[in-house]
Amino acid sequence: MNFQTKLRDAIARNNSLLCVGLDPNPRLMPPGVTMAQFNRAIIDATRDLVCAYKPNLAFYEAAGLEGVRALEETLALIPSDIPTIGDAKRGDIGNTAREYARALYDHFGFDAATVSPYLGFDSVEPFTSYEDKGVFLLCRTSNPSARDFQDLRVDGRPLYEHVAEKAREWNVHGNIGLVVGATYPDELARIRELCPAMCLLVPGIGAQGGDLPAVVRRGIDESGTNAIINVSRKVLYASQESDFAGAARAAASALRDEINEHRPGA
Amino acid sequence: MNFQTKLRDAIARNNSLLCVGLDPNPRLMPPGVTMAQFNRAIIDATRDLVCAYKPNLAFYEAAGLEGVRALEETLALIPSDIPTIGDAKRGDIGNTAREYARALYDHFGFDAATVSPYLGFDSVEPFTSYEDKGVFLLCRTSNPSARDFQDLRVDGRPLYEHVAEKAREWNVHGNIGLVVGATYPDELARIRELCPAMCLLVPGIGAQGGDLPAVVRRGIDESGTNAIINVSRKVLYASQESDFAGAARAAASALRDEINEHRPGA
Repeated sequence: MNFQTKLRDAIARNNSLLCVGLDPNPRLMPPGVTMAQFNRAIIDATRDLVCAYKPNLAFYEAAGLEGVRALEETLALIPSDIPTIGDAKRGDIGNTAREYARALYDHFGFDAATVSPYLGFDSVEPFTSYEDKGVFLLCRTSNPSARDFQDLRVDGRPLYEHVAEKAREWNVHGNIGLVVGATYPDELARIRELCPAMCLLVPGIGAQGGDLPAVVRRGIDESGTNAIINVSRKVLYASQESDFAGAARAAASALRDEINEHRPGA
Repeated sequence: MNFQTKLRDAIARNNSLLCVGLDPNPRLMPPGVTMAQFNRAIIDATRDLVCAYKPNLAFYEAAGLEGVRALEETLALIPSDIPTIGDAKRGDIGNTAREYARALYDHFGFDAATVSPYLGFDSVEPFTSYEDKGVFLLCRTSNPSARDFQDLRVDGRPLYEHVAEKAREWNVHGNIGLVVGATYPDELARIRELCPAMCLLVPGIGAQGGDLPAVVRRGIDESGTNAIINVSRKVLYASQESDFAGAARAAASALRDEINEHRPGA
């Protein structure tokens, strides 16, 4: 089943636009719990509340071989009807991008991946050519320094708008989406205007301080379904004690409901 | 020993600016040879001819756990007086970039890494704060689509020049360099003008078709040492038969000599 269909079904089944970022950080996890055990507990506690899971590869790579093994185990634990997004932000020349696409889609089996735009079309095409997979291109990211380059003005408009327009132009298979930070609701609204039908992956709610009602009002399209709102730390580390799974469930449930309050058709 | 010193020593010892990209591709390697065996043969055949080795992580990640193990083995095989550059082109928000820096510098033990600029300062700082390590920021890449965004004009100058200037501004620890493709000698000359003292990592000679004499004349500074010229496929796959190591040595030796013909002080 392709990414879009799997996502649409999961959104409807769990009545949720919430994506949980599976970013296990040993410095924040309860002592004595492995990454795979931690993720298993989080998945068991939230699988009826989410539309997707998004592991960020950095947290696994930091633990070396053990981390990569934990990522493989985690992907095997995620129910097959919940889409997975490999948050890898890769971007390399065509010959090499093909290897990254193989790693993320063929080896790990992610349903979608995040990709950086800086190298242009031939760095993105090896991902989009997997027509059943999703590709989220970084557009306006959630971090404070996003403005360093993304806001630079080209022909009177910020660089990120040019990225959004290129994404639209490159979207011949209909499998491109955009990453837009929740911390910048004005930019989010502008990108939604430029790309009315594109799926937006929106991180930055929670620990990063994004304004949830503003994000939902301005980032979701009229169907009320064309966005994925990612939360990591606020769910994973709702408690850092042995009750972390229950606390994660409560946090995820509250977030799902708060998102639904503001979206049409929930 | 910090990256800069190790690099300077290796350049002098081997009288070489040549870096070999250790990018093992099973579709091009002789049959029956593992990645680690392939790299061992390439390293044994070229260790007196290079100033650095640059594994691109994509090729290892495409092989999953086995690939990561092969990368660890490869790093253990590289003589400790030859610097290693982890070509990962990572770029993520600060909290996550710290995990990538841990993976590349602490876990794998690379002496330097490549980083993408799109997310701005707080995505780069977790790398540069390792003061003994090198950080090569993507500036003007070697691929045809580099122009899609990197050439867009901001205040009358291409985006990549703004990246070069930011890199200079951020370079408080003196450990930032720039990645500039050999396929664009005019852009290379312009970046050298903007950043006269910065180390440039120059891929794109060989399979990508960059013009070697032009690159050396225009990219290297007056000391004749402040650049690293990377070649991957033209060395690794000089022969795809069982004589690949000897063929790689001959190719690397010819490239080293050709670079030296055009650089001052070789």
